[in-house]
Amino acid sequence: MTTGPGFDLERLVATNASAAFNRLAGFEVVSAGTGTVELRMPWRDDLTQYAGHLHAGMIAALLDTACGFAAASIVGSVTASHFSMNCLKPALGRCFIAKGTTLRAGRRQVFARAELFAENEQGETSLVATGETVLVPLAG
Amino acid sequence: MTTGPGFDLERLVATNASAAFNRLAGFEVVSAGTGTVELRMPWRDDLTQYAGHLHAGMIAALLDTACGFAAASIVGSVTASHFSMNCLKPALGRCFIAKGTTLRAGRRQVFARAELFAENEQGETSLVATGETVLVPLAG
Amino acid sequence: MTTGPGFDLERLVATNASAAFNRLAGFEVVSAGTGTVELRMPWRDDLTQYAGHLHAGMIAALLDTACGFAAASIVGSVTASHFSMNCLKPALGRCFIAKGTTLRAGRRQVFARAELFAENEQGETSLVATGETVLVPLAG
Amino acid sequence: MTTGPGFDLERLVATNASAAFNRLAGFEVVSAGTGTVELRMPWRDDLTQYAGHLHAGMIAALLDTACGFAAASIVGSVTASHFSMNCLKPALGRCFIAKGTTLRAGRRQVFARAELFAENEQGETSLVATGETVLVPLAG
Repeated sequence: MTTGPGFDLERLVATNASAAFNRLAGFEVVSAGTGTVELRMPWRDDLTQYAGHLHAGMIAALLDTACGFAAASIVGSVTASHFSMNCLKPALGRCFIAKGTTLRAGRRQVFARAELFAENEQGETSLVATGETVLVPLAG
Repeated sequence: MTTGPGFDLERLVATNASAAFNRLAGFEVVSAGTGTVELRMPWRDDLTQYAGHLHAGMIAALLDTACGFAAASIVGSVTASHFSMNCLKPALGRCFIAKGTTLRAGRRQVFARAELFAENEQGETSLVATGETVLVPLAG
Repeated sequence: MTTGPGFDLERLVATNASAAFNRLAGFEVVSAGTGTVELRMPWRDDLTQYAGHLHAGMIAALLDTACGFAAASIVGSVTASHFSMNCLKPALGRCFIAKGTTLRAGRRQVFARAELFAENEQGETSLVATGETVLVPLAG
Repeated sequence: MTTGPGFDLERLVATNASAAFNRLAGFEVVSAGTGTVELRMPWRDDLTQYAGHLHAGMIAALLDTACGFAAASIVGSVTASHFSMNCLKPALGRCFIAKGTTLRAGRRQVFARAELFAENEQGETSLVATGETVLVPLAG
């Protein structure tokens, strides 16, 4: 289960727990593989924008964190230098699931992308946003 | 002072106050003109990532909100469909200032960009991130 | 085989032939479905950057065109308002294949993404770049 | 006039001339400073998309090259890993001017952005697109 330089589901769970913002927002690491990760965040009324949808900053936070953890599962600690996202539809639901995947892990840059799904009261999920990041591995 | 469909500093202040996430994070609308806006957020220890810097989601939230308010100052209510940012250096400081500017306000899409500055204990500011958005005006 | 407002492989082939740049560069529409398209471009020595790889503008052209045609297969004529790409590795090969997919086709905006593969002399393909676009449907 | 590791207007002119695509498209390096560059390309009927505007791939090529040369003026040879652009209005005119600026030149990544202006028959210019890149310096 431990693959690559330090990959470990427990390690991602610990990284997640060490980030104050992730705790405040209620991010959970649901599962992880080499180069992939799934995060979950239950709906929170205090994380919304003016129209009552999940705030774009939270959509970004979920997508970026999924990308970062997917990269970290291969290369260890990383920092994001570029992030972008497309918001396909209003982010509403009882919880959100972010799935991150590493596209390429180079020595100097890692490319990852992520999808954000909203789960409604019936348990049905739909794609609400996509994102991608360029990350830089930190020196060991 | 009121220019365009509903522009008004008080209106942006009210929009900001109506967004639960903006209240939680402590966003303040410092100033606004037609197509421009300046936001401010004091440092908060509970909005950080694992290394203790401001979380990428918060950087995104500040940049995206500055773009959205800059657009709203011209066209009224908007929703972001695309957002991207470059993180130039670690986001650390006693407060953050986000400056948004509208590049083009079309009937169907508005383009805006923003810069995020960190202010250190000496009151010196430095550019830490840049962002841009594509926004869609909501029907009146 | 004809689905949606005007979709038709022949129509995309005709659109491709009507674009002077696509003819100059040698783009071919290999296949198309509702919301998907595959383009091909044989290697050309005169489309390279200073180091002899395919020029970033050509990578963008292939990805953007794949996105645009994937969107056009559903909603008819479109114009791109935002485009972004990640260049994962040097673009070298005897030919390039761009695969575009529509993520969401709204009334006012269409979101699509694409992948660019390079094919080497042994016929093996590898992913060299990914891209995504936000497109606006043109009035009928 | 020579500043940083090898900066020199003549060097950028030579780099531009060494790129087959840049010759084919008719790119000219008009001016350059430390971290800035201006490119020019006269209109060409064979570089258009289906509606007769400058092709998105050419818009990307101009913006990306302006970013790359602006970065090269500080750090020498670079390669782009991420590029994005917003197309604000149809790219039409008798010539195009791309202005690139370096935002931050780090050891491992360089951030640059560019603006593309179209010049009409009356010699008036207007902003038609903006772009930004993340570049990686090549080893000396």
